[in-house]
Parts: sequence; structure tokens; C-alpha cells
Amino acid sequence: MVVVLKPNPDKEKLDSLVSWLKSKNISIHAVTGESKVILGLIGDTSTLDIGMLHALDIVEDVKRVKEPYKNANRQFHPEDTVIKVANTQIGGGTLTLMAGPCSVETEDQIVGIAKAVKAAGATILRGGSFKPRTSPYSFQGLGAEGLELLKIARRETGLPIITEIMEISQLPLFDDVDVIQVGTRNMQNFNLLKELGKQKKPVMIKRGMSATYEELLMSAEYVMSEGNENVILCERGIRTFETYTRNTLDLAAIPVLKKLTHFPIIIDPSHATGKSALVSDLAIAAVAAGADGVMVEVHNDPPKAWCDGAQSIRPETFTELARKALALHEFMKTL
Amino acid sequence: MVVVLKPNPDKEKLDSLVSWLKSKNISIHAVTGESKVILGLIGDTSTLDIGMLHALDIVEDVKRVKEPYKNANRQFHPEDTVIKVANTQIGGGTLTLMAGPCSVETEDQIVGIAKAVKAAGATILRGGSFKPRTSPYSFQGLGAEGLELLKIARRETGLPIITEIMEISQLPLFDDVDVIQVGTRNMQNFNLLKELGKQKKPVMIKRGMSATYEELLMSAEYVMSEGNENVILCERGIRTFETYTRNTLDLAAIPVLKKLTHFPIIIDPSHATGKSALVSDLAIAAVAAGADGVMVEVHNDPPKAWCDGAQSIRPETFTELARKALALHEFMKTL
Amino acid sequence: MVVVLKPNPDKEKLDSLVSWLKSKNISIHAVTGESKVILGLIGDTSTLDIGMLHALDIVEDVKRVKEPYKNANRQFHPEDTVIKVANTQIGGGTLTLMAGPCSVETEDQIVGIAKAVKAAGATILRGGSFKPRTSPYSFQGLGAEGLELLKIARRETGLPIITEIMEISQLPLFDDVDVIQVGTRNMQNFNLLKELGKQKKPVMIKRGMSATYEELLMSAEYVMSEGNENVILCERGIRTFETYTRNTLDLAAIPVLKKLTHFPIIIDPSHATGKSALVSDLAIAAVAAGADGVMVEVHNDPPKAWCDGAQSIRPETFTELARKALALHEFMKTL
Amino acid sequence: MVVVLKPNPDKEKLDSLVSWLKSKNISIHAVTGESKVILGLIGDTSTLDIGMLHALDIVEDVKRVKEPYKNANRQFHPEDTVIKVANTQIGGGTLTLMAGPCSVETEDQIVGIAKAVKAAGATILRGGSFKPRTSPYSFQGLGAEGLELLKIARRETGLPIITEIMEISQLPLFDDVDVIQVGTRNMQNFNLLKELGKQKKPVMIKRGMSATYEELLMSAEYVMSEGNENVILCERGIRTFETYTRNTLDLAAIPVLKKLTHFPIIIDPSHATGKSALVSDLAIAAVAAGADGVMVEVHNDPPKAWCDGAQSIRPETFTELARKALALHEFMKTL
Repeated sequence: MVVVLKPNPDKEKLDSLVSWLKSKNISIHAVTGESKVILGLIGDTSTLDIGMLHALDIVEDVKRVKEPYKNANRQFHPEDTVIKVANTQIGGGTLTLMAGPCSVETEDQIVGIAKAVKAAGATILRGGSFKPRTSPYSFQGLGAEGLELLKIARRETGLPIITEIMEISQLPLFDDVDVIQVGTRNMQNFNLLKELGKQKKPVMIKRGMSATYEELLMSAEYVMSEGNENVILCERGIRTFETYTRNTLDLAAIPVLKKLTHFPIIIDPSHATGKSALVSDLAIAAVAAGADGVMVEVHNDPPKAWCDGAQSIRPETFTELARKALALHEFMKTL
Repeated sequence: MVVVLKPNPDKEKLDSLVSWLKSKNISIHAVTGESKVILGLIGDTSTLDIGMLHALDIVEDVKRVKEPYKNANRQFHPEDTVIKVANTQIGGGTLTLMAGPCSVETEDQIVGIAKAVKAAGATILRGGSFKPRTSPYSFQGLGAEGLELLKIARRETGLPIITEIMEISQLPLFDDVDVIQVGTRNMQNFNLLKELGKQKKPVMIKRGMSATYEELLMSAEYVMSEGNENVILCERGIRTFETYTRNTLDLAAIPVLKKLTHFPIIIDPSHATGKSALVSDLAIAAVAAGADGVMVEVHNDPPKAWCDGAQSIRPETFTELARKALALHEFMKTL
Repeated sequence: MVVVLKPNPDKEKLDSLVSWLKSKNISIHAVTGESKVILGLIGDTSTLDIGMLHALDIVEDVKRVKEPYKNANRQFHPEDTVIKVANTQIGGGTLTLMAGPCSVETEDQIVGIAKAVKAAGATILRGGSFKPRTSPYSFQGLGAEGLELLKIARRETGLPIITEIMEISQLPLFDDVDVIQVGTRNMQNFNLLKELGKQKKPVMIKRGMSATYEELLMSAEYVMSEGNENVILCERGIRTFETYTRNTLDLAAIPVLKKLTHFPIIIDPSHATGKSALVSDLAIAAVAAGADGVMVEVHNDPPKAWCDGAQSIRPETFTELARKALALHEFMKTL
Repeated sequence: MVVVLKPNPDKEKLDSLVSWLKSKNISIHAVTGESKVILGLIGDTSTLDIGMLHALDIVEDVKRVKEPYKNANRQFHPEDTVIKVANTQIGGGTLTLMAGPCSVETEDQIVGIAKAVKAAGATILRGGSFKPRTSPYSFQGLGAEGLELLKIARRETGLPIITEIMEISQLPLFDDVDVIQVGTRNMQNFNLLKELGKQKKPVMIKRGMSATYEELLMSAEYVMSEGNENVILCERGIRTFETYTRNTLDLAAIPVLKKLTHFPIIIDPSHATGKSALVSDLAIAAVAAGADGVMVEVHNDPPKAWCDGAQSIRPETFTELARKALALHEFMKTL
């Protein structure tokens, strides 16, 4: 950690800072520049509150040198994490295709879509049962009943299922789910993250709409710090000034997160763009950039979808997308 | 609601849309322009899923005319909501000064600060017991014990208390709290909002870091739709590209929200800027712009605060700020 | 255009609006809803100032239905624009590889890099002579001398050259340049755009750091409205809250712009990310998403580059990138 | 400047970096931490290209300690800059009220508005003659003729005039203008800034829509580095995700810029919000926060304004605003 002092710091205050740091077993290396003094702090600075240092009268700036995440840091965990999910895996060179409707609606709907996406090459079935909706007057999902329908679709197709949890009390209902999804709006629901860290099911964390890479990794760190190493990260678009698309898909997240961490990275172009016509091109781009998989909303009749129809593609479009994505994924290995 | 059709829409699909809308008791007024047809939809369009319309092949765009919030809409509730809190009130021409430490640390600390801010003119004591921290390795708050210390401070000073809830299961602990705060990261924790709607205590909702005014109002709508009309809105800075301040305080929120809704508006310059030196000027600006109050972090020894010391001001600075804010609030009435 | 009226509009003001619109040969179709009246305006609304309508007391909102750009609109110009540049072309199914240093430095440097990128498959040589630098104390480019060095490199390699113009008075110097680049900071330098519209050389417009797609297209419209149809659009990252990368590359721009307009789209991952290690993965993603080309900074000795060394890749890395990009571009045609 | 090295840096490369820095008369203080080495660089680091250091294989991060602006830096210029404009001044404890129409339209219009705003207390007349408009089909301003009309209005009222320059070749026309405005879209038109630095008239630089404080100060530095110290800074809203207002007014700019620099700060709530109903509240907030003045669009008939009517207030509203602003400014001195 580097502490930049204000010009001509009060000597008494500086001495007090130095003794306090020494009492924490931090050693200090002062570098005196022309107009400013900087202090290099050596030792376990992870317990120092950066805000506390900022609050000191004599301090102008504090710059962290070490990343604040440990378990999630590739530096201390160089090999890729590969997540086993039923008879498939996420990461480790495979291409995961998660597909399914925004919301589970009926048995016919979910089973029908599941069969279609399985036939196309999907490896995991997605479907929302507990739906975070901006309006209290919108359909809120089928809840527990939706989870049962997802399990029926799994039984019929063999596809493992991923679905979103919205709060801790729902956790027992997710006992027989294959991957638990933490949505964008819950990325910093720290209590929920801790509880998910206490169980062993894989957890896919979606990046918050205005979360930095570092914050996303800190959320993964919350899960890992409680003992669960089965974390998957998902980029699903960030909020910017551009309103033509619902959000701005940040594909740099793929090489950046591959460098910073060891978790698999999934890209969700459906939520990122909010427009079905853009989904395929961006899913393909994600595969080319090295994503471990994509998550795509598929609905047999988008205009009648109970939510987010505008971003859902039809099964036949998904079939085409999956064909291209899988072929591209193979081709990329030959490059 | 206005639906813009693509040029030369397929006739069959258009007929199907029209019959479906009619089945929902929506009447349709078509306006044929040079290159495009627009449909004006009349009736209860609040149940129409805008996404569904967007998903139709023949639809180019859908523009909402009515606000999606009802109970929170000033149009249907013209008079200001005034919130009674113990022996004081929020809104209705008063200036509420919420002050206190980021975190409750010890009895001495919270009682000392409470006495100081009360003497300065604060009307509500703030203090965090359950703390949402980006890092699992940071101090997470005293929890239930902190709530007890807050109550002691209340007993000693008579100041009602506001503190943050992080998840539903904590609700019983908040039985004897005066105002329940929903933090930025939980603004769209819809399950929590619904539960808070089922009880009667005032709820202060902080705007999410990348939440629009409309989304903030929809969160208030969640609380109101369950029966609780005691909602307070808090602007605490939004996330932008500027990194000098932690967030960008959006004071336009005051006149905008005053127009759109009837709830009291509180401004939090401490979290917005993350820098104690900026707090007073922005608190004063908020009062001038017509805020119903400000929320300010005050700590007797900011560098030793267990969290967010960099943005906390000292009691003597708060005393000065409160004096100015109250005088300005009186002066503004004379303008 | 759709005008939403406030509830219970003043009758006299409404009549006045209606007569004014009729005097402009706009016909009006009123649709009366439950709480609001909307007016559909038919006729040549392109001359109506949307702000003027917004300014009326009785108007709540104005929503445009038609895009404000005409020449740039694919609806009125369905076929792709293909730009001829010397012996090559941009668009029309080709993959353009623009490569070269941020700044032209010396003859040896630019000729050396030009030869290297030509050998790797580059089709256009880039190199800055007039450099927009945030600091007046940074190297500002070689100016006219740099243009001469670029021409030498062109003579040596046969590669056409693209370089940035910073203001109108430089235009005569660009007489013998192949493609004129308008930088991010000049995207809305409307006087410059008009002048570039009066000549015939191809103009590549880089998207402003916070420009919407529509604004980018309006800048292209400025060039076209003066008679020059040789426009190329370049996405180079937008400014968001994320600071790990310099900007956030918005690859959705490719399918979006392909839909809205007929111009070729080039992607610049070097400026978007500011980090050489991210350039190749994002260039590859851009090709997969359907970009007409990529623009990449290449320097023989990045640490010694006179500007932006951090984002420059070495010739050997570019060779590898070009090989992959060209192979991928061929492969994509087979999908 | 602080350079953070990657773990286990290549010794040869490190030696080469060290010798190169020494050749630049930079002395180096290495601080060896647990996992990383940081180098503190002492000497004139202003000539070091930060990007060059970033580009080195062995470097992980570079953190600047000194601000990159010198002349604009309050640290080296502690006293406030006060700008003399005709018989008035900007800064130095006064409150400057700049008011007038978006565009100069006719002699009657500009003289009428000038008289009205002068009567209300305005000290400077604003009015656009060269207008940067997003669309080539919108009114582009009266040009040179508008400047003449502004001068007539000045003669009639005695109010000095401020108006926007769009490119260097217009400079001779601005010979008899009192303050030259550089618009948002030209904040980083560095050639223009340099030319404005070579003359002596005061220059008001509006913050770019996505410009950081530091970038705004670097633009001021461009003007100063050529010899003109008469710079005024103007905050006019930044672009964020919120679309209800046109931009987000960042009032923290006032205390932040007051700390970092010595220039007067003007706030423009008209462009920031794009909505006339919000202008007064935010102008008042700006005065309370310590702004040196506000710039407000005033039009005698906003719906008929040739541009930006939606954000213009009427003279009678301005009279009320000016009365409040001036009273508040006096009151603030008594606090």
C-alpha cells in the first residue's frame, strides 16, 4: 500500500501515524519527492482500512498495490477452476450453452423448450421461477411450482438446471437445483452470498449493472470465504448512457477476468442487449473472445412470453446459434 | 401506450395483435404517417407487458405514456406525505438532520456522538449495525448488539434512530427501531421491500448506484403496494465515470422527485462524495434546493472509525453545518 | 412524432398549438386516453424542433418516431456502402486490417512498422501526425513532417494511409492522404465535419467517448449532407464507470449499426482497452461479430513509443493476430 | 510517481529500466513488499510518459502522485483568479449572473431579452451565434450577424457579452466579444484552446459531457500554457445513465474545483437538466454551494425559440431567480 502525504505534514500527526502502523506490524519506507512524501507500507495491509488512512488530515491519497481478493485471485490459484455439473462441466475448455425461457410458465412450455434446446446442443437448461421484476404489478414468477416444473424438464431431457435465488429463505427449495444463480440486483446481497458459500452447489454470480470487475470478484470472494469454491462469473451488460440497447455488453470482461481470476466466465447477451436481433452476433463474439459459455433466453413464442419476450430468441434461431457457436469453438482451438 | 409499427407490417400479424389487444379491453387508434404507422392504445395498459409488444416482429418501438407507478405518483396523491417519527416528523416543511457514525462501535462512541449531534440540532440518530461491506474481510458491523447500543443512545438523548436492514430475517430485530433504512445495494431486493410493506414503520429507501428515478419510485411502489405508505427517498450519489468523488451527487433528484412523487427527499452527501471536505458544501446546496433533510456521517475520531472514516466529519464540523443548514432553511422560507 | 399532453390542457393553448402545426402542414391525430391525450403528428416533422414542443406548458413529453438521420439511414439506402481506398476496399465482405503506430516518430520507425504489418496482412497503414493529447506538455505529433514520413512508408510498401486531422486549416496537408480520420474528441466538431463533406476523400469517424449511436450517425449525416458519401464508422470504446480498462468496448455497435446504417464498421480495441494484452482477444471478437475491419496500434518497441505504448502490440503479436483474424473471417463465411 | 512491478521481474529488464530512469535524472527508491516491489520515482517526472512505463513487461501498474497540471494548480497559485470583464468581474466574492437566449435570433429579440435580464440583475449577456447542433438540418445560428446583434444589445444595455466560438477561423470575429466560450463538444479541441491561449480575452471552458475534473483542468492548462491566464470553468452536466434530465448536474464540481484550482466556477443548470422547471432550484443550489455564478438560458417566448426552448425560462422567471440568487449570495456571507 502506498500513502501519499500532503505537503508539509504536521510532524506530531505523522509520528502518531507511524507508531500506529508499527503497532500493526507494518513497516514503513518513506520516499521524499520534490513536493510530496510517499510512504510504502510493507506487511499484512489487508487488515488496514483504506478509508481510515484517507481520513487522516495529513494524508492526500492512498493507493492499493495488492488486489483485495485472495481466494479469487489467479495469482494464488493459477489453474482454471472447472465446475462439475451433473454429467457435464463448466470451464476447462468446454463450451457451455445455457438456454431456456426467462420465466418458467407451464409444464408444456418448459419441457418443450428444454427438448428443443437440448436437441440444438444446449448443456444446461435455464428458467426463472423467482423473478426480480422492477414493478410489483408484473408477473413475479411461479415460485416453488416453477422449480418443480424445471425438475420435470430435467427428467425429460437430462439437462441440468440453473435458476435464480432471490433470498436466503428460498435456499431449501434449491436443494435439488444444479446451479444456483445470483442475479444482477443481488450481486452485493452479502448475506445471501455468505449463505451460498456455506453450501456446495455451484453458484453463478451475475455482474451488477454498475459493478466493477473488482467488486464482482469481491462477491465471489464472499462465497469462497465461507468454503464454496464452485463459483461461475457472468457478464450480462453494464449500465451506460447508451439507451438503444438495454445495457452495454462488456466483452473485455472475458480476457480481463481470465487474467485476474480462475473462475469460468459465462456471457449473457440476452439481458445485455434486450433485443433478440442482437443476441446471436454477440454470443458468437463471446465465444471468439474465449468465454466458457453463453446464456441465452429462448422461448417458443416470444411475444407471448410472460416476461422479457423482446430479448428471447426462438428455438430455431437458437439451433442456428448453437451450431455456429459450437463450430466456432472448435475452430478457435485450431487457430 | 404508443406502439410504432415497422414499415409495411404483415397484415395477418397486425390483425392478430389487434384482436389480442381488444381481448384485453384495449382500444386502438391508428395514426398513419408517411413511413410508419403508430397505434395509440387506450385502456388499462398497466397490465400489458411492454416487452411482449417489443417482441413482436411487426413492432419497431413501444413508448409508454403513463408512469408505471401509481401509489407513488403525485398525480394521484397531490399532497406531500409527512412521516411522523417519534416526536418529530420528516417532510411537511421541516428540515430533518440525520447524523451519526457509519458504524456503531461502542456504547461510549454512539452515546457520545448522539449527544453531540443532538446538541447541534440533529433530529434523528443514524448508525449502522448490519453493514454491507464490499469485502468479506472488512468489519461487518456489530449486528444485534449494535441495535441495542443505538437504543441506549436513543434513551440518553431522546433522538429517534434510523439503521439499515440487510435481509428479511433481521426484521424482528428492527421492532423497536424508528426508521428502517434500505441501502443502495438492496434498493431492488424486492422480497425485502415487500416485507417492509407489510409492516408500518417508516422505510427510507436509498437510490441504487445506477438506478433511475423511475426505478427508485418503483421500489417505493413495492413497499406501498403491500400497504405501508411511510416511505422516504434518499439520493446518495450515482455511479459515473468521475472517480475523484466516490459517486456523483445528483441534486436534480430533489426538484424531479418533488414533481413526480409525494414522498420526503433526504440527501446523503457523505456517501455521495466519500470525502469529508465536500460534505458541508453539498449538504447546504441540498437544503437550498429544497431537500426535506440531509443524512451526514459524524464520527468523533474519523481516522479511527471502523468504517468509512474518510467521509465522516467531526462533531464540531457537524455543529457548524447544522447551524448553517437550519439558518438557510429558515432563510429560504423568506425568499 | 408523438406529443403527450399534460392532463387537462388549457384549451386556448391547445388550439394555438394545433393551428401552428397546421400552418407547418402537419396533420394531427388526437388519441384520448384515460388520463392523458396524445397527438400523433403526420407530415414532414423533420423541421419541427423537438425542444420547442417540449417547451410548451401543455406538453408533457415528445417522442420521436422517425430517425433524425436520412442519408445515413439504411431504410433509405438498403445496400452496403463500400469504400474504395487505392487498390483495396473497406466493406463489402472484406476484412480491413488497419495497423501502425500511435504516432509517427521517424522514417525508420514508420517504414519498419509498415513493412512488418504489410507482411502480416495489414491493408491500411495507420499513424498519427497531429496528436490530440490531454496534456499540453505531452508530445503533440510531428505534424506535417509526420505526413511526409507516412507517404514514404506508403511508397515503400504500397499500403494506403489513414491519419487523423485535428482542424480545418490542416485540410490542404491531407490532400495526399488516403483516408482521413476524425478522432473521438472531434466527433462533434461540426465545422470540421462539414468541410470534410465538401471533399471526396473517405472519412473515418470515431465514436465520441460518450456519444450514442444516433449521435454518431448524425455526425456521419453532417459529412453526407455536404456531398461526401465515403464515410466509415469506428467504435473505439465508450466511457463508463469501469476503470480497469481505459474505456468499455461496445461490440453491440456492430450489429446495431449494421441494422441502422449502410456504412462499414471498424473496431479499435487498442484505444478501447488501453492495454496491449487485451487487444487480440477483442479484435478477434469483433471479427466474429461481423466488423468490416479492425484498427490496431502496432509498435516495434512499445515501451519506447512516444505515445500510448501501453496499448501497442509488437509486430510479431500483430502477425499472429492478423493470421487468426483473417482465418476467422474466412471461417465465418462458411458458417 | 509510483511504479508497481510484477512479481519476480526479469532482472535484466529491471536494470534497463533503472538506467533509463537515471539517464532522465530520476532517482529511484525501491520498496520491497511481500509479493510485490514498488519503485518511488523522485525528480521531474512530468516529462515521463506514463503510458511508456505501463507498456513495460515488468510493470504491473503506475500511479501518479503529482497532478499533471501546473499553472491551473491551486497548490502553486493559492490566490483566487479574478477575471475583469468590462465594468464587472467574475470571481472574487461576486455572483455573476449570465443570462440570455440559446440563440440570437433578431435584434428585437436579443435587445428585449438583454434589457429584461439586465433589469433583473444579470451582469453578463449570453447568446449563441455559432451553434453546435447535433443535426445538420437544425438551425446553425446566425453566425457573424448574430455577433453584431449581440453588440447592439450590449450598446443598449451596457452588459458585456459571452458567446461561443466553434473553430479557430472564427477568432477574428470575436475581437470585440467580452468573454469567449468554448463549448462542451470543443473542450478537448486542443488546437482551438492553444489559439485562445495566445490572445488575452477571458475564456470560459465548459466541461465535456464525459470529462473528468482533471481533463477539464488540463484543458485550462492548454490555454494557460500559451500565456492567457483568464480562464473560467463551467460545469454544465455530465452524461450518465439517467435520461429524465438531459444530463446530470455535478455540483460537487464546485468544492472540488475550488480546492484543486484557482479559477472561477460557473454553473449552467439549463443545459444540465434540459428542463426549464428544474433550472431555478439548481441555480439556487449552485449559489449555496459556493459557485461564482450561474449561466441561465432566458427567452421571451420559449416555445418559439429557435433552439433549446425546453430549457429556457421566461424573463419573469429569471427575475425571480435572480432576486433569490442575489439575496442568497448575500445571506451566505453572513453564515
